[in-house]
Amino acid sequence: MINLGMASLRLYAGLVGCRSGSCARSLRTLSGMTVSQIDEEVAKLLELKVQLGGDEGRHQFTLKTAKGTRDYNPKQMAIREKVFNTIISCFKRHGAENIDTPVFELKETLTGKYGEDSKLIYDLKDQGGELLSLRYDLTVPFARYLAMNKVTNIKRYHIAKVYRRDNPAMTRGRYREFYQCDFDIAGQYDPMIPDAECLKIVHEILSELELGDFRIKVNDRRILDGMFAVCGVPDDKFRTICSTVDKLDKMSWEDVRSEMVKEKGLSEEAADQIGQYVSLQGGMDLAERLLQDAKMSQSKQACAGLTDMKQLFSYLQLFQVTDKVVFDLSLARGLDYYTGVIYEAILTQTGPVPVAAAQNGAGEKAEEGVSVGSVAGGGRYDGLVGMFDPKGRKVPCVGVSIGIERVFSIMEQKAEVRKGDGRETLCG
Amino acid sequence: MINLGMASLRLYAGLVGCRSGSCARSLRTLSGMTVSQIDEEVAKLLELKVQLGGDEGRHQFTLKTAKGTRDYNPKQMAIREKVFNTIISCFKRHGAENIDTPVFELKETLTGKYGEDSKLIYDLKDQGGELLSLRYDLTVPFARYLAMNKVTNIKRYHIAKVYRRDNPAMTRGRYREFYQCDFDIAGQYDPMIPDAECLKIVHEILSELELGDFRIKVNDRRILDGMFAVCGVPDDKFRTICSTVDKLDKMSWEDVRSEMVKEKGLSEEAADQIGQYVSLQGGMDLAERLLQDAKMSQSKQACAGLTDMKQLFSYLQLFQVTDKVVFDLSLARGLDYYTGVIYEAILTQTGPVPVAAAQNGAGEKAEEGVSVGSVAGGGRYDGLVGMFDPKGRKVPCVGVSIGIERVFSIMEQKAEVRKGDGRETLCG
Repeated sequence: MINLGMASLRLYAGLVGCRSGSCARSLRTLSGMTVSQIDEEVAKLLELKVQLGGDEGRHQFTLKTAKGTRDYNPKQMAIREKVFNTIISCFKRHGAENIDTPVFELKETLTGKYGEDSKLIYDLKDQGGELLSLRYDLTVPFARYLAMNKVTNIKRYHIAKVYRRDNPAMTRGRYREFYQCDFDIAGQYDPMIPDAECLKIVHEILSELELGDFRIKVNDRRILDGMFAVCGVPDDKFRTICSTVDKLDKMSWEDVRSEMVKEKGLSEEAADQIGQYVSLQGGMDLAERLLQDAKMSQSKQACAGLTDMKQLFSYLQLFQVTDKVVFDLSLARGLDYYTGVIYEAILTQTGPVPVAAAQNGAGEKAEEGVSVGSVAGGGRYDGLVGMFDPKGRKVPCVGVSIGIERVFSIMEQKAEVRKGDGRETLCG
Repeated sequence: MINLGMASLRLYAGLVGCRSGSCARSLRTLSGMTVSQIDEEVAKLLELKVQLGGDEGRHQFTLKTAKGTRDYNPKQMAIREKVFNTIISCFKRHGAENIDTPVFELKETLTGKYGEDSKLIYDLKDQGGELLSLRYDLTVPFARYLAMNKVTNIKRYHIAKVYRRDNPAMTRGRYREFYQCDFDIAGQYDPMIPDAECLKIVHEILSELELGDFRIKVNDRRILDGMFAVCGVPDDKFRTICSTVDKLDKMSWEDVRSEMVKEKGLSEEAADQIGQYVSLQGGMDLAERLLQDAKMSQSKQACAGLTDMKQLFSYLQLFQVTDKVVFDLSLARGLDYYTGVIYEAILTQTGPVPVAAAQNGAGEKAEEGVSVGSVAGGGRYDGLVGMFDPKGRKVPCVGVSIGIERVFSIMEQKAEVRKGDGRETLCG
């Protein structure tokens, strides 16, 4: 606890030096401390205070849930049950069976699957025996399950909590413990049929939940990699540049470009060429245009991705869901394991800004009133099961994950607005 | 990893020296290593082996779930859903609402609640920020929830996984990750009415699940403490002697007596007096007899407990459940937080011994063919909420926890027997 001293002094100097919101926000780019680090230092100091006896001596401990987590009271449970029922009946309608896996996995099971996000994994303390980590998603445990049980063909759903040591923004439904509702199809099928079914499922669920308008962005890891190649990104920088592109939904292009060039050492020319591509959005027409693009068409990978994208849109037309689906070259998704199509659904309607969020200031991106962000995401991961199989046998997989905490937030806000009394709705 | 050396050498010497089952079992009482420590050493060595490249080099990692945990395949999920539905509809019939709490709590929330079992708590690694532990049960989080939200009156149920670093015996349904189905009543009621309702619920659920015959043992923490006092146990040894008595369902009286006298320093006279009391079983009649007992009646605490026990049995008669309920002075339950009535339900019917269990030898108690052990337990804990309230305000509580992993084991075995083909039932 003594080594808190230095960090705390740094923190204190920072806070004394600048109190206004804009200044606190600029801290984020100062070297040394990020907003999440500050939050953690504050938590450490409060813990230290408690250990020293707190304000009044005994009987003083922090009566709270862990950072980034929440309880559900009976009314909230009722909303949760309703949302689950909608989702589960859709999954079942599409022929999925239910499985469950443990909340923690051997640490090595999660190693090398999440790229730069690995730092967000919760490890368990080494108390002797196996080294364990809390699951970060339901996809890697699913792949482990398939390899372990030699299952090569299954449609399964799995609804369970996952854990990420991320910077929480709970008023907008961003937690460290949160539910994922996953639907995945493992096995060999005609190209793009299972992929299209996943998008159809997202479309059905978001429509049925009546959360307002939404959009589903689609891209392909091969199109991204092809684009990086033809723009002159060195092979060993694909993944890290991809992580930076993934921040385009939260950061301006200028900030993303700056991170690529200054932090990741990409040439300015390469960054600018990427900038031109990632501004493109469209449908089947865009896929056709890019197949003719002088530069893009040099990449075999990109061409394979674009041909599949055309095929995907032809199925989406049959499913009558193209009204909400956009082929968007800026969609990157940071996870390492994707190999083909990737997608992400966002709610586009402006919701009421909850009071707590408006008061929260530093640490929250100023995106309230615009969207609650991503509510579903997924993609194709044909190599993941092979990483677990002792003989490297691959099982092609595609899946989607619905993140319902944000959906709960919206539904709770609606319930509050209806009742005109937030306390009654939110407290037990 | 290097400091594994000494323990491994010790382990190796032990294994080379004695290979037979009886000898392996006697290792448990040798100083230095218990069976669970050996298991952990083996796991460490296997991990080390994997890190060193395993048998064949690359692509070698342990394809398994963490020790003491399991996956559920779709058929097992169907059994699980059926069991949950039976339990939930009973809880709802008795007027309970549903809540949920996070899988981990601040470490300090769990501190000082579980007595000697605290060593079984899973801690999360200190990665900066708060110190966290996985929940050990649903009762302490419930008490924290009540204090935090100032709820003084609620009937709630909560079905979720809890975590204990215990020595698993998975073939008999003993896991490190397992479900608890909890029903609790918080608030001021006429004495023993909520307590009797909890027992009624256990009776209803175990009857509806058709698991064969069962018995519900009942005792009272005040009767135990009074008994310890009149038998001459020093005050500061109550909790630790109570933990030893709690082992009577797994150990013979001779072993329990020996632990009391040799390990815990109790006088032989006190131990023998305890031995006479803990052999007693009965119903309302026994409570009446003990109220007249020259020694027992000297303890005010014991008398209060015995009077309530009489009251409890009068309600149980009205509920028509006395056929399965036994007042048993050997029932202790190790948890620190109980203050009044305690109970535990066991299945008494002999089930088929699964092959894997019969082959498992050392580390498994030879209780197969007798019972799968406890399937439900609970009691009154009037002081727990007050431990969380900043002003120490108490909320009287009583509750019961159904442990369904053992129920699953039995139902899966039944399904296997019915199908005559275990593989089909157990694998995806």
